[in-house]
Amino acid sequence: MFRELSSVYEAERALLEFCRPVTIEEEVDLDRSIGRVLSRDIISPIDLPSFDRAAMDGYAVRSAETVGGNPLSPAYLELGRQALPIRTGAPIPVGFDAVLMKEDSLMREDLVEAFAHVHPSRNVARAGEDVSIGSTVLSKGHRMRPADIALLGALGIIRFNVFRLPRVAIIPTGGELVPLDGASPLPGQAREVNGLMARLYVEMWGGEARLEGIVPDDPELIRSALEASAGCDLILLSGGTSIGDKDYAPGALDRLLYHGLLLTPGKPTAIGTFADRPVVCLPGYPVAALVALYLLVRPAVKRLAHLQGGTPTIKATLSRKIASRPGYTTFSRVSLDGGLAHPIMSTGAGILSSAAHADGFVLVPEDLEGLDAGGAVEVHLFE
Amino acid sequence: MFRELSSVYEAERALLEFCRPVTIEEEVDLDRSIGRVLSRDIISPIDLPSFDRAAMDGYAVRSAETVGGNPLSPAYLELGRQALPIRTGAPIPVGFDAVLMKEDSLMREDLVEAFAHVHPSRNVARAGEDVSIGSTVLSKGHRMRPADIALLGALGIIRFNVFRLPRVAIIPTGGELVPLDGASPLPGQAREVNGLMARLYVEMWGGEARLEGIVPDDPELIRSALEASAGCDLILLSGGTSIGDKDYAPGALDRLLYHGLLLTPGKPTAIGTFADRPVVCLPGYPVAALVALYLLVRPAVKRLAHLQGGTPTIKATLSRKIASRPGYTTFSRVSLDGGLAHPIMSTGAGILSSAAHADGFVLVPEDLEGLDAGGAVEVHLFE
Repeated sequence: MFRELSSVYEAERALLEFCRPVTIEEEVDLDRSIGRVLSRDIISPIDLPSFDRAAMDGYAVRSAETVGGNPLSPAYLELGRQALPIRTGAPIPVGFDAVLMKEDSLMREDLVEAFAHVHPSRNVARAGEDVSIGSTVLSKGHRMRPADIALLGALGIIRFNVFRLPRVAIIPTGGELVPLDGASPLPGQAREVNGLMARLYVEMWGGEARLEGIVPDDPELIRSALEASAGCDLILLSGGTSIGDKDYAPGALDRLLYHGLLLTPGKPTAIGTFADRPVVCLPGYPVAALVALYLLVRPAVKRLAHLQGGTPTIKATLSRKIASRPGYTTFSRVSLDGGLAHPIMSTGAGILSSAAHADGFVLVPEDLEGLDAGGAVEVHLFE
Repeated sequence: MFRELSSVYEAERALLEFCRPVTIEEEVDLDRSIGRVLSRDIISPIDLPSFDRAAMDGYAVRSAETVGGNPLSPAYLELGRQALPIRTGAPIPVGFDAVLMKEDSLMREDLVEAFAHVHPSRNVARAGEDVSIGSTVLSKGHRMRPADIALLGALGIIRFNVFRLPRVAIIPTGGELVPLDGASPLPGQAREVNGLMARLYVEMWGGEARLEGIVPDDPELIRSALEASAGCDLILLSGGTSIGDKDYAPGALDRLLYHGLLLTPGKPTAIGTFADRPVVCLPGYPVAALVALYLLVRPAVKRLAHLQGGTPTIKATLSRKIASRPGYTTFSRVSLDGGLAHPIMSTGAGILSSAAHADGFVLVPEDLEGLDAGGAVEVHLFE
């Protein structure tokens, strides 16, 4: 039995204290920078536009020569000398200061009739109007999206500095595990899938995952695997977290901060450190592992990666009661159907099919005995 | 001037009629299947677990032999004959039918004291309890998430069928454009960035993007580029959509459905077909292109890819008034600060920096003249 059980939120706070956002920088090419976080402010090397340009199709004119033009009585301009045809985006010729819109004009042989009096700079995009040289375009900590990439491209910035992705080692442990792509498991064996699941989530949440080979239940070998991963920013040990004879994972850490959480599924989760790196010991049961990934690993990876934001949520009405164990934070899988959240009944932490059929989860707080049918709940959507 | 302007929603409906979800299938490896959409139901080839197994650490027992065991007066079992040590996940030995939890037992030399009467199947995960052989595990149309991948891995399904990704051709047009990685643009030239922006969004929304080389303003060359892309499921022509002398993009289509939308920015957007493929002509101004991407290309790609879901939204309170042009759907960029949405003032569709500073956008409906400060708005978050 666990000697003492702790709140998952307390464990999360302790874990995050050991997760310092990565400060190492690296260079990245613009077209591969999506999702990356800037490690420095980006300063524009140029004015954008770099010259005064036409904002409309029409004629470059001298505004003073259009005075008096109106729909009933045009001003007359000589084509080629007083009015030069111009396309949107083209530079305003020297000596001209405005654009007469095509819609406000009529060309008759070598004359252009201007049916509007255009003011200086009218329909002209001034140099530096979008971005001026030396200004801060994007700030340190900004996460790159496609529109940001287009902006930097327009400024000719095609390589720049970002924070290195946090490196997350994932070490599956357990003598009963066989590789996913190997022979069929014998009775008593199981395919290793939690490591793959963790890898895919870590990548989705902004980390670079390193999935290591399966380590047998041997304290020495587990410690060796930890040592080999000590250069990573976060280490996940999968399996062997309970209190059985062969559950060596928590004992292999340098410092065990929490072992046994008031969380269901997910009670055997442990957190601690190895070589001053934060370590999460994930339970071997797949659904319990999923819970620990969402409640502990997700905030840890996000923090290391300089990213914010919890899981996306939507509000829904509970279609049936959710029972829960008082004192425990309960992670209840639900499927969504319109505005209704249906709790998915399942008998255990091993029932992975219950997660596959779920759209998200509801967290029942420790101090409640469950949630009533008809109540409003916040559903965290599975990513 | 445009002869007739149409609602963006009407144009979207027409576009989606030409976007048929891709029916071609391909095989994918399990560990590369994230985000892919199943083209067939997945049927389990095995029971999971494949054998009766222990759900707890303890002793395999015959339930009948524990009758009468309780915390004050244990039942006595002979170690090795009536009680076999067993770990979570291990097969239940033949002839045994339940697991006595370690916590409910005490071992004294060759005797195990059972402080509980365990019922048949107690603490046993039955073969097929999670997934039974022949049952449907995941249905056609399901989008693969990490937990689904773990489930299929546990079943030994490491290769399966998905719908091919929709292929989206992106053709930048315009004699003023220079490649992003080439020499600095001369006055009158600009770096091609809208194509890259479109490519990154298409990939994010679930398509396979093919960014073609820049095509000059020449009707023949534009048509040739369209012909070369006729094998794609959707074609995006970028630039040359207005009504100037060199705006050849809409004219190059086989069938022009809409040209000129009641949308600001984004009015010069056009939609139509070429070789029976849907085509969107994106305006050359970057922000107008962004608007057309979000309001037309996003739903088109999602539909082709069998995916649902609009942009993620959050509710916020408007900090300042948004002015808008009655009759037009207005796309207003906002930045978020706690629960407040601040409209980003900008003078034109070319101001890409306004999008880079925005967290999302608010759509002002056609029938309103704007939105008042203090009002509740739905902010669509930029991805």
